[in-house]
Amino acid sequence: MRAEILSVGTELLLGQIADTNARWMSERLAGIGVDVVHRQTVGDNVERIVGALELGASRADVVLITGGLGPTQDDLTRDAIAAFAGLPLVRHPELEDMLRAKFRGFSARPMPANNLRQADVPEGARTIAPDRGTAPGLIVGLPSGVTIYAVPGVPDEMAEMMTGTILPELAAQTAGGVIASRILRITGMGESAVGETLTDLFEGSANPTVAYLASMGEVKVRLTAKAPSAATADELLEPLVREVVERLGDVVFSVDDESLEEAVLRLLRRHGLTLAHGLTLACGESLTGGSVSARLTAVAGASAAFTGAIVAYTARAKRDLLGVSQATIDGPGVVSEACAREMAAGARRVLVADLGLSLTGVAGPEPHGGKEPGTVWIAIDAESRTHARGFRVTGERDRVIRWSQQGALDLVRRHLEGRPLPTSDTTV
Amino acid sequence: MRAEILSVGTELLLGQIADTNARWMSERLAGIGVDVVHRQTVGDNVERIVGALELGASRADVVLITGGLGPTQDDLTRDAIAAFAGLPLVRHPELEDMLRAKFRGFSARPMPANNLRQADVPEGARTIAPDRGTAPGLIVGLPSGVTIYAVPGVPDEMAEMMTGTILPELAAQTAGGVIASRILRITGMGESAVGETLTDLFEGSANPTVAYLASMGEVKVRLTAKAPSAATADELLEPLVREVVERLGDVVFSVDDESLEEAVLRLLRRHGLTLAHGLTLACGESLTGGSVSARLTAVAGASAAFTGAIVAYTARAKRDLLGVSQATIDGPGVVSEACAREMAAGARRVLVADLGLSLTGVAGPEPHGGKEPGTVWIAIDAESRTHARGFRVTGERDRVIRWSQQGALDLVRRHLEGRPLPTSDTTV
Repeated sequence: MRAEILSVGTELLLGQIADTNARWMSERLAGIGVDVVHRQTVGDNVERIVGALELGASRADVVLITGGLGPTQDDLTRDAIAAFAGLPLVRHPELEDMLRAKFRGFSARPMPANNLRQADVPEGARTIAPDRGTAPGLIVGLPSGVTIYAVPGVPDEMAEMMTGTILPELAAQTAGGVIASRILRITGMGESAVGETLTDLFEGSANPTVAYLASMGEVKVRLTAKAPSAATADELLEPLVREVVERLGDVVFSVDDESLEEAVLRLLRRHGLTLAHGLTLACGESLTGGSVSARLTAVAGASAAFTGAIVAYTARAKRDLLGVSQATIDGPGVVSEACAREMAAGARRVLVADLGLSLTGVAGPEPHGGKEPGTVWIAIDAESRTHARGFRVTGERDRVIRWSQQGALDLVRRHLEGRPLPTSDTTV
Repeated sequence: MRAEILSVGTELLLGQIADTNARWMSERLAGIGVDVVHRQTVGDNVERIVGALELGASRADVVLITGGLGPTQDDLTRDAIAAFAGLPLVRHPELEDMLRAKFRGFSARPMPANNLRQADVPEGARTIAPDRGTAPGLIVGLPSGVTIYAVPGVPDEMAEMMTGTILPELAAQTAGGVIASRILRITGMGESAVGETLTDLFEGSANPTVAYLASMGEVKVRLTAKAPSAATADELLEPLVREVVERLGDVVFSVDDESLEEAVLRLLRRHGLTLAHGLTLACGESLTGGSVSARLTAVAGASAAFTGAIVAYTARAKRDLLGVSQATIDGPGVVSEACAREMAAGARRVLVADLGLSLTGVAGPEPHGGKEPGTVWIAIDAESRTHARGFRVTGERDRVIRWSQQGALDLVRRHLEGRPLPTSDTTV
């Protein structure tokens, strides 16, 4: 099956936003064995959207449009599909009711009338009910056999309709088989080193396939098998997952596409199997400004294992709230091994947790306290053990913050798994 | 002048990498007044690259290709341009010398022969010498008057050739025209209400144009003008910016595309113009788990105005670290107006700041302390004033957290701007 992705939005052509949807959709379609052969981007213009639909429908089995389904007058995808397919737009009363009900949930004000444009549907089209947003998705079958799927441009709303409706529908049509993936996640090893370690496993193999995806401080390895049934796909994947883990070793923090913070929370809770209760964690953050805690608490159920954090952005807060000694502040300074260790111990003590985690450093762009941007110290403090690690992160402020988070969460992960803890003085 | 961008690479269609080049090129082209009307993406396939060139050259004055100029056998852009233009590929001895010299600089090994493919040029084409990389860029004028520019896919190499050669060349041809945009950002009013308030301003107007972009808890309004000069573009935009601000009122938090956290930090610093120093802010966070502080500290220079935060995820931490009274915890509970007010006062006191900001509530998915998910209380505490606001957020955990952040940061923004502060009991 061939698919074409059509991204609609003048803001894309002006370069004001990145087209993250096209990439996300491409990746997921590849994951179920659908070939994406072309992508197009056009602005908010009916004629150009129609032209792009004509082209897409002439060379693909499925055209997926993202964007242009909202309530404003520059949302023109509905009109363009209707024009291209030669169908009138018909207002659906049940969608109108849905919109009014959603709007009542959002706001005490009356619903602006232009919202009702979202209840207009090309005659005979199927719709996909929105969960998070208000714009319904559209599914239009053409006489040629080509199907057009239209989803909103808001990434969450697009992803919800792709995952809930479109990908399962397309997977069912891609003929009898199932496509199963396993995603292993890695931190502490670069993409090219991961690729080099695994390359011979996949030479000449079309099933399972491997794909690598690097993002800041992390590499994902996706193993994908096509097979007649889920059980056979698992039989293909399981030995390969084991082999990959064996080769890569303890840099693999998940074989189930968990985020690093999810892995940490799972490990904290798992100690409840051996202890009377699970373990709890508290953070003392400086350069990361609360972002480690924010990642942990974004996960539902975090409150069972996370007691809180002190974001101590000033030396005074480090001393008064985390108990860092004046001698440390005046001596090695707030960006030092001693400060990180005292911050971790302080977070554990004042937030009454089993484990304290701390981060201090210079996010940049300016140096601080005589230390260069990218200088980072992290530490953990538990009853049984305390450990600190210093490292340097190259690059911009957001990279320094992100890699510091990864280093700190991975220190907790390794501690809880009983793995060796990394020593200092590496550059990442 | 109309341009079309053609991104070449199978890894793009598989979703393995993001097409950051297309966005970067779009933004820079808009900046010099070149209209990007279409973008296309195709894989490493001569026939499809030729097809995309045919289409692009039929509707644009300039086609810019990125990707497929490297040394490996899947780098096919040179071959495709030659095939499309009906020109033979000719090896250039001076490019061959350049490649050999560059390779000697990189490596002691002999240069692999396939590197020489990068010295092949469609007959009569101009080339752009590479600085960082090895692949030359290509410039091919077609008899139709259309020009094809080909640059490497490596972002730094692409940017170098765009900035050094292509953008100046195109700017000289577009003769004085510029495209200028102003982005206004809004929180506390939905996209459809914003659109309805402004719609008549843009009816029948092609210059300036308006576009709306909604993301969680925010709406952007982009005004774009084309004019012979930056000054004339400003003359078109300025009265419109004023009119939009007047109509929308104090929901507009920036007319310069600032994020809400940037606006808050700017306002805190601006008080330094009237006070001896700027104002400082501290946070007491519960349901947002440190994410308000993380947003503030992601901005470079935050340390001048932000002293820190207490992420008090437990009732005990709220009492012991933020000074919430046991009577409040036992009475109205930790999700209450009283608790929010005491947390804000506590954050201001213990973190020694001019302004305390607090958030408490139920992120979900489970209820907490008898309160439903989405129940939120926020408060600010300053010497001159204290204010609390309760509201309900519908939807998932991430939406509850995001909208709580927006509400809290906007409360600070309104306080600092001397705007009316919103009252309780709205649903967002």
